[in-house]
Amino acid sequence: MNILVLGGCGFIGSHLVDRLLAAGQSLRVLDRGPERFRPPLAGIDYVFGDFGDNSVLIEALADIDVVLHLVSATLPGTAALDPEGDVARNLMPTIGLLETMRKLRIPKLVYLSSGGTVYGIPETVPTPEDHSLRPMNSYGIVKVAIENYIRMYGANEGMATTIIRPSNAFGPRQGHMGIQGVVATFLQRLRLGEPLQVWGDGTVVRDYIYIADLADLVARAVLSPQTGVYNAGSGIGLSIKEVISTLEGITGRTAQVDYRAVRAVDVPRSVLDISRALKDLGWEPRTPFAEGVKLHWGWISTMASRE
Amino acid sequence: MNILVLGGCGFIGSHLVDRLLAAGQSLRVLDRGPERFRPPLAGIDYVFGDFGDNSVLIEALADIDVVLHLVSATLPGTAALDPEGDVARNLMPTIGLLETMRKLRIPKLVYLSSGGTVYGIPETVPTPEDHSLRPMNSYGIVKVAIENYIRMYGANEGMATTIIRPSNAFGPRQGHMGIQGVVATFLQRLRLGEPLQVWGDGTVVRDYIYIADLADLVARAVLSPQTGVYNAGSGIGLSIKEVISTLEGITGRTAQVDYRAVRAVDVPRSVLDISRALKDLGWEPRTPFAEGVKLHWGWISTMASRE
Repeated sequence: MNILVLGGCGFIGSHLVDRLLAAGQSLRVLDRGPERFRPPLAGIDYVFGDFGDNSVLIEALADIDVVLHLVSATLPGTAALDPEGDVARNLMPTIGLLETMRKLRIPKLVYLSSGGTVYGIPETVPTPEDHSLRPMNSYGIVKVAIENYIRMYGANEGMATTIIRPSNAFGPRQGHMGIQGVVATFLQRLRLGEPLQVWGDGTVVRDYIYIADLADLVARAVLSPQTGVYNAGSGIGLSIKEVISTLEGITGRTAQVDYRAVRAVDVPRSVLDISRALKDLGWEPRTPFAEGVKLHWGWISTMASRE
Repeated sequence: MNILVLGGCGFIGSHLVDRLLAAGQSLRVLDRGPERFRPPLAGIDYVFGDFGDNSVLIEALADIDVVLHLVSATLPGTAALDPEGDVARNLMPTIGLLETMRKLRIPKLVYLSSGGTVYGIPETVPTPEDHSLRPMNSYGIVKVAIENYIRMYGANEGMATTIIRPSNAFGPRQGHMGIQGVVATFLQRLRLGEPLQVWGDGTVVRDYIYIADLADLVARAVLSPQTGVYNAGSGIGLSIKEVISTLEGITGRTAQVDYRAVRAVDVPRSVLDISRALKDLGWEPRTPFAEGVKLHWGWISTMASRE
C-alpha cells in the first residue's frame, strides 16, 4: 500500500512513520521541513512543501492509496489568538485536500482530530465517540468542521474515511516550548530546575496517551478496511497533581509549582472512552503512564547530554 | 434600542424590519443593495456595502446595541458546489464580525442559522434544539461552525447571543428562481403553467413556516433578555405531495409534476420541535400553511399583474 503522510516529520508523524515502516509499508511524507531530532529515514520519499499548495499536493498524491492527514497549523492555545487564521490555515486547505482527493479518486483518508476539544465540556466521562460535539475553542471548532467535511465527502463520494480523536499524546521527540503538552513541558522544566506553571488548582483531569500507543492505533486504522471515528486515549483520567507526582517520582526531582488563576473556559475533566477501538481494531494502549514518562525522560536526558 | 440588521433588505430581513419598526425600534440596515420589491422604508438608516469589509462594518456598528445577522452568501444548493467559497464568504466574515463586536463591546448578537441542515438526518422527529449536530452538506457544516464560534464568543466575552434555526420560510417577497424555496418556486410555475420538478417520489417531509411568524420569533429574540438556541418552524411536517395539493387548492390550478431521481444525500423527514420558543419567548406560529400560501399567492399574483 502506498501511504502519504501529511505532517510526517512532526512529533506524532515521526512515530507513525516508524510504525508503518516496521509494518513494511511504502511511505511518502509531505511536510514543511525535515524532522527536528533525527536525520531523514531510509525508505521514505520526502516531499517538502505546504499541503495547501495544490501543485505540491497533486505531485505528492501520485499513486497514493491512503492519505494520513496529521497537519495542524495551530495548537489549542494559539488558535484562540487568531480564529480567522485558524480557519484559513487548517480548514480551508483541508477542504482543498478533499477536493483534490476526489478529483484524483484517492480512495482513503485517515485524519487526526482532537479528543480533548471536540466534545466541549462532556456530559459523559469517559466520553464515547457518539457524544455530541460542542467545542468551546477555535481549535476544536475547526476540528469539528473538518470532521464534518470529511464525513460529507465520505458519504457523497464513496471515500473511505477514518477519524482519530487523540487525547494528550506525550513521549520522545515532542517539543517542549510550553504549548505542546504538559508532560514535555514539565519534564523539561524539572530538568532545568524551573517552576511548573499550573492553571487552576491542579485538579483538572486529562487523559494522557503514550505516543507509541497512539501511533499503533493510527497505523491499524490506516491498514484496516474498517472505517469510522475512534477515540485514542488511555481511558484513564489523571489530575495535574497526579501527573506532577509521577514526574517527581521518575525524575527524582521536587517540583516547585506556581498555581495561576484558572482560564475562562477550561474543561474540568476530559477522559476518553476507548472501547470502540478495541472492538473494531483490536487496539489497546500498552504503556502505563509512568512507563511512558520514563521513556520520555530518558529521551530528554539523552538530548540534554548532547547539547 | 439601536438595532443593526445585517441582510435587512433580503426576503427574511424585509419582514423583520417591518416587525421591528412596528415595535418602535430604531433600525440601521447593512446590505449589499436595496430591497428588490419595495422602495426604501422611512425611518431606516440604510448602509450599503459588504459586511465582510471591516471599515464598512465598523461604521455600521456605531451606537448599536444589538446586531441581527441574517446574511448568507450561499444557499444549501449552491454551497455544495464550492465548499471553500462557502467557508470564505460566510464563516470567515462572521468571525470577523464577532471580533469587531468584541473590540467595540457590542453587547448582543442574534444569528439566523438553519433548522433544516444543522441536525443532519435526525434521530428524533420533531427535532429539539439539543439534538446532536451532524450536518450532511457544506451549508449546514458552515452554519454549525458559525454557531460554535458564536457560542465561544458568548462564553468567553460575555456577549449575549441567540441563535434561531428556521425551517423552510415562505411568503411574499421571496425569490422564485428555483433554489430559494419550494413554495415560491412551485407557485410561480403554477402561475406560468410550467411543470413542477420534484426530487424523489414526493414523500420527503419538511417543516414550513410563514415568513411573518418567523419574523415575529426573531423580533422577540432581539427584544427579549432571554438568550439561547431556538428552532423556528411550524412543528408540522408536510410531504411534497401534500404541499402540492394545498397549492393546487389555493391557486385553482392543476400541477403537472415531473418526478426526478433522488439526490444522493437528502434528509427524508425534517420537522422541528418548537416548544422551547413557546416556553421562553411566548411565541407560537399563528399562520396555518394554507393561509400562508394564500397570502404568498396573492402577492405573486399582484406582482405579475404589474409586469
